[in-house]
Amino acid sequence: MKYRRSGRLVDMTEYLLRHPHRSVSLTFFSDRYGSAKSSISEDIGIVKEVFESKGIGRLATSAGVSGGVTFVPMIHEKEALETVEKLIHSLEDSTRLLPGGYLYMMDIIGDPQRMQELGRIFASFYKEAGVDTVMTMATKGIPLAYAVASHLNAPVSIVRHEQRVTEGSIISINYVSGSSQRIQTMSLAKRSLKPGSNVLIIDDFMKAGGTIRGMMDLTEEFQCTVAGAGVLMEAVHEKEKLVDNYVSLTKLSSVDAKGRKIQVEKGTMFSGDHS
Amino acid sequence: MKYRRSGRLVDMTEYLLRHPHRSVSLTFFSDRYGSAKSSISEDIGIVKEVFESKGIGRLATSAGVSGGVTFVPMIHEKEALETVEKLIHSLEDSTRLLPGGYLYMMDIIGDPQRMQELGRIFASFYKEAGVDTVMTMATKGIPLAYAVASHLNAPVSIVRHEQRVTEGSIISINYVSGSSQRIQTMSLAKRSLKPGSNVLIIDDFMKAGGTIRGMMDLTEEFQCTVAGAGVLMEAVHEKEKLVDNYVSLTKLSSVDAKGRKIQVEKGTMFSGDHS
Repeated sequence: MKYRRSGRLVDMTEYLLRHPHRSVSLTFFSDRYGSAKSSISEDIGIVKEVFESKGIGRLATSAGVSGGVTFVPMIHEKEALETVEKLIHSLEDSTRLLPGGYLYMMDIIGDPQRMQELGRIFASFYKEAGVDTVMTMATKGIPLAYAVASHLNAPVSIVRHEQRVTEGSIISINYVSGSSQRIQTMSLAKRSLKPGSNVLIIDDFMKAGGTIRGMMDLTEEFQCTVAGAGVLMEAVHEKEKLVDNYVSLTKLSSVDAKGRKIQVEKGTMFSGDHS
Repeated sequence: MKYRRSGRLVDMTEYLLRHPHRSVSLTFFSDRYGSAKSSISEDIGIVKEVFESKGIGRLATSAGVSGGVTFVPMIHEKEALETVEKLIHSLEDSTRLLPGGYLYMMDIIGDPQRMQELGRIFASFYKEAGVDTVMTMATKGIPLAYAVASHLNAPVSIVRHEQRVTEGSIISINYVSGSSQRIQTMSLAKRSLKPGSNVLIIDDFMKAGGTIRGMMDLTEEFQCTVAGAGVLMEAVHEKEKLVDNYVSLTKLSSVDAKGRKIQVEKGTMFSGDHS
């Protein structure tokens, strides 16, 4: 089947969006559409221009016989800020307040398209970090971790609190929950993280950072390195955090359970004070 | 900013892919690109032709002043079958065998792009079912449930085994695990499922169907209806299943732990014997 330019552009856009962070050769497209490489090159130029002007991402091209194109999802700072400001507005809704000062967040975490948007922000932030695997803690970190991983073309490793995991050999570590000071256990199946991987840790919420610290230690047990850590929300905490190389999208600055008031501000990703 | 057709096609494709099952008005696109509605109509015609010939999905258009277009993700039966056959091949790898006859599946479940592909198959199958919410059981059902939900533009409700859920009021039910015959509890936050919703249940694995049956009962407790149920894999089971209106992508027909042989076949979605 022969394609005209217009048809190629539609299909190529769909294909590239579905295969981020992967080099696709000109030959692949030229075979797919029965078109000359020179035409494909021009097509890519058009897609590139729109992706870049619309802030969808970058198309990195390499020349030569093995020439190809890699789609790197990104987001304009302005759009990221707008997304996070909408999120803050939603988080400050006082009906979220639960007994014990907890916030109900499942409406946000349960929204796949919102997770995709937030995931794109993290993927854009860590686009150059060489992330091999995204790690998260069950249960609530999973949706955001998958969204980030899908934009980075990386697999996900799910750490769990339990030890009765039916996944073969596991490695478990003890860690101290920073806020409750209790000793807890986290486990990860040995097969689910390759030694030598560069790991991006993603979670929904961070208080003192004990869980993130634990995942960093676990990463080391697997002979892996930490590319960074990202959380949807961090609580401004009385004591020092147990981790430093992390970014947050939002900061929970105060919860007034009696006055029913929640105050949320932009996270470290937007304040420039992240490492 | 004025866009030429080629630029509009790239941007429109990206926009529609990101907003499935949602009506987008011609006016929206015409404002976005500063182009006449007649041009936008032609653009949509081109996108529609490619989406349909490539099996990406359908563009349902409605005419008139409030005219618009809705992208419905789909997949060609042939492509779905190829995807599932690749999955079967991977599932039959004998190194998956774990003590107790369990199969290691986290490499599959941990792959976001594979989850997206499989999610698209379910979303295509249930595209007319009027799904309001996708329900799943923590932990392993979550990735597939989000993939399905993102293609259906639906939120996700995560059911849990625990009762110590910090999500406000919860509704819990007891259910009998079909395989172990033990009484267990599952809980869902009251706020995370609207009464009257039509619920699609998604899970990774089904043996006798006790968990799925439980989720169906839970759905009823929330005054909701069941749109259907889909599982990545079902085990061929000696006794009768506890549910009938479900579809599976694959069937685990036998596990020979001693001979280290796993046999997997296509699921009910492809055999025509689903309801």
